[in-house]
Amino acid sequence: MNVLIVHAHPERRSFNGALTDTAVATLAAAGHEVVVSDLYAMGWNPVAGAHDFTTRAEPATLDIGTEQGHAAKHGGFAADVQAEIDKLMACDLLILQFPLWWYSVPAMLKGWIDRVFAYGVAYDFGRTWDRGVFTGRRAMLSFTTSSPPSSTGTDGRNGDLERTLWPLHAGVLALTGFSVLQPFVAPAVRWVDADTRARLLDAWASRLRSIGSDPPLAFHRLEDYGPDGRLKPGIEPATPGQHRGRRFHLPPQ
Amino acid sequence: MNVLIVHAHPERRSFNGALTDTAVATLAAAGHEVVVSDLYAMGWNPVAGAHDFTTRAEPATLDIGTEQGHAAKHGGFAADVQAEIDKLMACDLLILQFPLWWYSVPAMLKGWIDRVFAYGVAYDFGRTWDRGVFTGRRAMLSFTTSSPPSSTGTDGRNGDLERTLWPLHAGVLALTGFSVLQPFVAPAVRWVDADTRARLLDAWASRLRSIGSDPPLAFHRLEDYGPDGRLKPGIEPATPGQHRGRRFHLPPQ
Repeated sequence: MNVLIVHAHPERRSFNGALTDTAVATLAAAGHEVVVSDLYAMGWNPVAGAHDFTTRAEPATLDIGTEQGHAAKHGGFAADVQAEIDKLMACDLLILQFPLWWYSVPAMLKGWIDRVFAYGVAYDFGRTWDRGVFTGRRAMLSFTTSSPPSSTGTDGRNGDLERTLWPLHAGVLALTGFSVLQPFVAPAVRWVDADTRARLLDAWASRLRSIGSDPPLAFHRLEDYGPDGRLKPGIEPATPGQHRGRRFHLPPQ
Repeated sequence: MNVLIVHAHPERRSFNGALTDTAVATLAAAGHEVVVSDLYAMGWNPVAGAHDFTTRAEPATLDIGTEQGHAAKHGGFAADVQAEIDKLMACDLLILQFPLWWYSVPAMLKGWIDRVFAYGVAYDFGRTWDRGVFTGRRAMLSFTTSSPPSSTGTDGRNGDLERTLWPLHAGVLALTGFSVLQPFVAPAVRWVDADTRARLLDAWASRLRSIGSDPPLAFHRLEDYGPDGRLKPGIEPATPGQHRGRRFHLPPQ
């Protein structure tokens, strides 16, 4: 397999760095080709803007989606974006390695998604979810946290971790067609001892040795939805982001 | 009230720009003091790193949390971060204005959160949630989407919008103590006509005129949790992120 690890941490000697080192060594030993985009080391620019494009469909007013679609058709991406698109399109397995900051990825990694998962490249009209660009490929999150597992349990103080991950799992990876694998979570790494860290690295290596046969998480297929974009009446919601229960923060719908 | 609008869109003439213009005009007319951080116009750097600090607790190895705590005690934030911290600490109402990209904020805005919501400033040991730094102050999201409301309904293709917003509502705003107001959502703005856009701006202005008495969203208080960080047995989960039902993507807990 071709594996792309997108690594986003400001300190290479952090535990995230150790997780990436473990992944590179383990996957290479298993015969896989591994490419690492170390975003901090690369000086990656996470800001989507006019500098993303060498051509413009509408020079007067910048609409990122419009320009991404135009650039996709005319080879008009800036070199830094195109280089990452090339890596993304070549991978069979995508691993995003990061510290969970504010229930999400660091800005550095969000900006890799904003700029590289371009319209016309990573998704298109009619090319999403199980008809997406990346169907048949695998992707997963690997991250560190600063809280114990109990606080990210279903009724934990930080909320159910699988709901917290919905925007990344569904909105980025499944929406573009990836088979999303269970995340690898290294909890509370700031507070654990050297033995626990070593056990976490072993667990990560062990996980990666069988990553090709890991069962993916379930998301609904496009055929499960009616023309209104909602699950057909007979379809039972089967993801952390969908339900037919009450709403708490928004009006009922 | 002092109002801080953090505006993150690469095109000032976008509908997000119109929403910010409407907010500035409406709030100023009502006698409020309004400050806008237009992140693209400012050339804001969203990358958290060693450049955030003029002092260092541990010069050899960069840990952002450790250095934020140290900088908070010793006045050691870089000028760009300190300027935004000053605006944040002075506001009674925080409005984040952005296009919803990949079910979240653009990297530009995520990096404002990563760098400005610093440990020792926006949160601290024992100073979170209803004991947080910003208790008594209000915050809200205002954003545009590219999908119709039906697809972000409870069983919509994109998932329930209130679950998608959990990381921002809970993980950023409620966690630091803000009273979180309902978001203002401008759906599918790319596809709507001029009349609909005008109506959306009117609705935003109308909303802002009574923003001081808007009822906040419900989050659990720290006293609702046991020492294990989970809701006490008698407490019914009352947010989009917490429940006692089944898990779909992670092992049961």
